[in-house]
Amino acid sequence: MSLNEFSLIERYFANIGSARYPAILSLGDDAAVVSVPEGMQAVMSIDTLISGVHFPESTPAADIACKALAVNLSDLAAMAATPAWFLLSLSLPDFDANWLQSFSEGLKQTAEQYQVELIGGDTCRGPLSVTVQVTGLVEVGRQLTRDGARVGDKILVSGVLGNASLGLAHLQQRTVLPESIKDLCLSALKRPVPRLELVDFLGRHASSAIDLSDGLVGDLGHILRRSRVGALIRQADLPVNHWIKQNEAYAHALNGGDDYELCFTLASKFWPAVVSWNLDNPDCLLTEIGEITDSNYTLIEGNQAIDLNDWHGYRHFD
Amino acid sequence: MSLNEFSLIERYFANIGSARYPAILSLGDDAAVVSVPEGMQAVMSIDTLISGVHFPESTPAADIACKALAVNLSDLAAMAATPAWFLLSLSLPDFDANWLQSFSEGLKQTAEQYQVELIGGDTCRGPLSVTVQVTGLVEVGRQLTRDGARVGDKILVSGVLGNASLGLAHLQQRTVLPESIKDLCLSALKRPVPRLELVDFLGRHASSAIDLSDGLVGDLGHILRRSRVGALIRQADLPVNHWIKQNEAYAHALNGGDDYELCFTLASKFWPAVVSWNLDNPDCLLTEIGEITDSNYTLIEGNQAIDLNDWHGYRHFD
Repeated sequence: MSLNEFSLIERYFANIGSARYPAILSLGDDAAVVSVPEGMQAVMSIDTLISGVHFPESTPAADIACKALAVNLSDLAAMAATPAWFLLSLSLPDFDANWLQSFSEGLKQTAEQYQVELIGGDTCRGPLSVTVQVTGLVEVGRQLTRDGARVGDKILVSGVLGNASLGLAHLQQRTVLPESIKDLCLSALKRPVPRLELVDFLGRHASSAIDLSDGLVGDLGHILRRSRVGALIRQADLPVNHWIKQNEAYAHALNGGDDYELCFTLASKFWPAVVSWNLDNPDCLLTEIGEITDSNYTLIEGNQAIDLNDWHGYRHFD
Repeated sequence: MSLNEFSLIERYFANIGSARYPAILSLGDDAAVVSVPEGMQAVMSIDTLISGVHFPESTPAADIACKALAVNLSDLAAMAATPAWFLLSLSLPDFDANWLQSFSEGLKQTAEQYQVELIGGDTCRGPLSVTVQVTGLVEVGRQLTRDGARVGDKILVSGVLGNASLGLAHLQQRTVLPESIKDLCLSALKRPVPRLELVDFLGRHASSAIDLSDGLVGDLGHILRRSRVGALIRQADLPVNHWIKQNEAYAHALNGGDDYELCFTLASKFWPAVVSWNLDNPDCLLTEIGEITDSNYTLIEGNQAIDLNDWHGYRHFD
């Protein structure tokens, strides 16, 4: 079957995503054109997923598509920005209609779920890799950055940590998970959920935020460096599944990547808002795991205080 | 040498490009934040270059960087948009300080030349590939699209066609070029020049435009399909180097990719503006190569009229 880039895009990538902010000009020209509403700023992120690096080669195409979009949406959530549009660059080793159909369906499902519209992209032949660039909108001056944490702020995370890392360990046969949590952990790895439901809450209450892609200790470290503060976190308070507790396998929660939960800081005075959020949102519970200090980066593990400055998150080029 | 993504970006990718439109928030957070001035719209494009596909594996890193940015800027030129910001996603097989330094310098040079600012990106380990996403600005409603060509419009191209294709043929030893044009053709292939100097001219005068990445016949075909018109082009009028003329190697100009010149249409009444442009811009001459007709797509080659509807431009998935 012969199919050029033009018809490939028309067949598989037209009408992906619903339009919260309809584009002026979408697919089919040299570039897309969008309008940023008055009083808003554009928030932009890009991330590439490569076969054999970011996902196993056997990963279903729909899962790859979902994850490629989700990890970018997660960056927007951490900025308290609402997703609007995305561009896709897709490199494929060959033309496989079934694969493309599945990829397209996964992309469509995720794009519609989060109301973000595919407005452009390119395809080419090469090793399997997917790059998504996403643009969100935030009210002028209301973006949430990494540099706003203040001494005394509480440190919180959304959801449960370590599931994706456990899922990977299971896939790589480093760990055998019980049936009771296996699917949960594999799903966390394959279909991460960007915490966009927190955009409004964070924009009102948080002082800083980051999304957890490379592991809590490393990612929170970015907030500390940018904010020029320290932190104390308590291992016993980390929201983890019962298997991690039973096996004391907290490294998955502390250092495991790919959770795509949000870690953020917030002034104590906003604590009632957290309590209220948790009552209303049982699927996105917020957990206090520690507080911002004026220096040092410490983990309380039982009776021990561990210095986290020498701790390493996942590093691509170590 | 150990270097994580964070310090890699800080070391090689901070302060790339001058800021015609300074970003609100650049590198170092989950996403970048930019402000689109009132009365302007954002124009967005993305393109990936892959080692062994879009450039030979031996290509110097600086050339790869220049080309990755230039091909995206070329898309903006074809939309009559002025470049503002770009994001970079870089996949590298290993950490090579010399390569990164050279890549960074090439990127910096191109970004400064065209006043576009690097505001974000990601790096990861994988097969060598470079994705650039660029955002430009255009006055509301003034974007130049592919669907505006009208019967009677003149068809023009900028610069000289076929040099990049000849350069590739020389590199691949399919052709041996004389010294007199070898460097010119290799440079056209390795360091394409985005025709941003034409942005203002096109915005005022052109009825449609496209950049020539896949070859004139195929790319002009996109304008014809979108505008629902035909065209007649004259081979003898194509702006080509003397070697192509002597060897009647017009296929390089008609079907060769990678020129990144612009092809556009314009109403006859604007012809004086073309004459005036050519007097003032000897480095970016515009050449009339044919006209828009109401149907058919025809090449006049000597006494022959060739039907171009069956002609194929470069197709990634043929």
